[in-house]
Amino acid sequence: MGKNSMKTTQEWQQDKVRIVLIETSHPGNIGAAARAMKVMGLVELYLVAPKHFPDPQAIAMASGADDVLQQAKVVSHLSEAITDCHIVIGTSARSQRYLQWPLRTARECGEYIAEQDEDKKIAIIFGRERTGLSNDELDYCQSLVHIPTNPDYHSLNVAAAVQLISYEYRIHQKQTSSSPPEYNENRQELPVNQKSMEGFYQHLEKTLADIRYLDPSNPRLLMRRLRRLFGRIDIVPSEMNILRGILSAMQGRKFKTRNKKP
Amino acid sequence: MGKNSMKTTQEWQQDKVRIVLIETSHPGNIGAAARAMKVMGLVELYLVAPKHFPDPQAIAMASGADDVLQQAKVVSHLSEAITDCHIVIGTSARSQRYLQWPLRTARECGEYIAEQDEDKKIAIIFGRERTGLSNDELDYCQSLVHIPTNPDYHSLNVAAAVQLISYEYRIHQKQTSSSPPEYNENRQELPVNQKSMEGFYQHLEKTLADIRYLDPSNPRLLMRRLRRLFGRIDIVPSEMNILRGILSAMQGRKFKTRNKKP
Repeated sequence: MGKNSMKTTQEWQQDKVRIVLIETSHPGNIGAAARAMKVMGLVELYLVAPKHFPDPQAIAMASGADDVLQQAKVVSHLSEAITDCHIVIGTSARSQRYLQWPLRTARECGEYIAEQDEDKKIAIIFGRERTGLSNDELDYCQSLVHIPTNPDYHSLNVAAAVQLISYEYRIHQKQTSSSPPEYNENRQELPVNQKSMEGFYQHLEKTLADIRYLDPSNPRLLMRRLRRLFGRIDIVPSEMNILRGILSAMQGRKFKTRNKKP
Repeated sequence: MGKNSMKTTQEWQQDKVRIVLIETSHPGNIGAAARAMKVMGLVELYLVAPKHFPDPQAIAMASGADDVLQQAKVVSHLSEAITDCHIVIGTSARSQRYLQWPLRTARECGEYIAEQDEDKKIAIIFGRERTGLSNDELDYCQSLVHIPTNPDYHSLNVAAAVQLISYEYRIHQKQTSSSPPEYNENRQELPVNQKSMEGFYQHLEKTLADIRYLDPSNPRLLMRRLRRLFGRIDIVPSEMNILRGILSAMQGRKFKTRNKKP
């Protein structure tokens, strides 16, 4: 996709953040995590003692994020995955058990990471599917990040957790970097101004009187309701043209019918 | 888990939001979406013409969210999935193509949904894995939600998208859930449901054809623009009565004039 968007890609691709998965059991989760990362512009994946890797299931679930998988580094212990990192953050579903760590929500964590200098390397550690991070592994972490979940069902999939953290980082990174170039292209038409709205209301009132829906001797309540209705929409010029066209067609019809009278 | 946390569960479980998946190809994605929902407290899942359902892969990927799968309703067309809904939101990766829909980021969407009254039903529609939502399906949507992704790789998995939207809703719902009880007493009328909107659009289309503003052999673009226009307002029943009254007056006028012909 997008051959001429290399610059945009580089702006999006972030080497600052490294995702570290520990002893992942299901290779499909590794692939899904790679996809989750890439879709938010992250590329650096470390796998600590994965049960099965490489694996066809990982590739299948990566769905085009093969490059992230191919560049993934497999190491045997967490310490190897974080040796060159400046900041190490652990993910935990059971936040209340670890009171001694600074705890951030996923949102606060995204903001915190985005604020760091680009030359800092930040590792975010995701534990095993069933048991999360061990106490030894938590010892490597300077802080924890917690994703709020249903108290009765906190079985957040590890790739889904990677998705949420990557997303939060991405959102904040976009905000702190210069506004994205595509922003203006996404702009909608500007709504019409008040003068145009008044012209529309007058045309509407006249037309409603013509078709005898409105009693000209007491138009106020009906027009007030209609103003409240149409005033809630930011009507853009092309839409206003349609509305005025409908009103004119209503009047034109009436005019034509009158002319046809013998 | 947590036998004595029934109250907490109820606070978390939200019937306000319905997740609708359209023609999902991979049953594993349905299961993963159910898990993504439940972990954020959502329970209501509608499946429009899924390729394979029920399916062992869906159950495997649901990983304990079997109840969400079991309660999932399978329907053959999107209209059946949203007929009782007050707000219909479509998800789109290609935001810039659809300029006339109000577009929210996932974050803004979460805030918007959380702000709605509890007795409103809100459907969030997720399209096919490869091709998303069709134009016909987009016509049912009042607004769109967009998740920002890597411009060169926007292959966000559908269950990951459900996870992000459910998460954003959950975050904001927690923030707004403590609103005082008297808040509801001050509320305005509830907007009409989707069935009422469809009835209005049919009446509008017929009337516009009657006054020859619309060419019945090619009605789609005009009706699409008008759906986009009126779909942006939460029309309440008393306002709908006025709009339908105007349409009837337009038709009645025509009828009367014809009768007057000698």
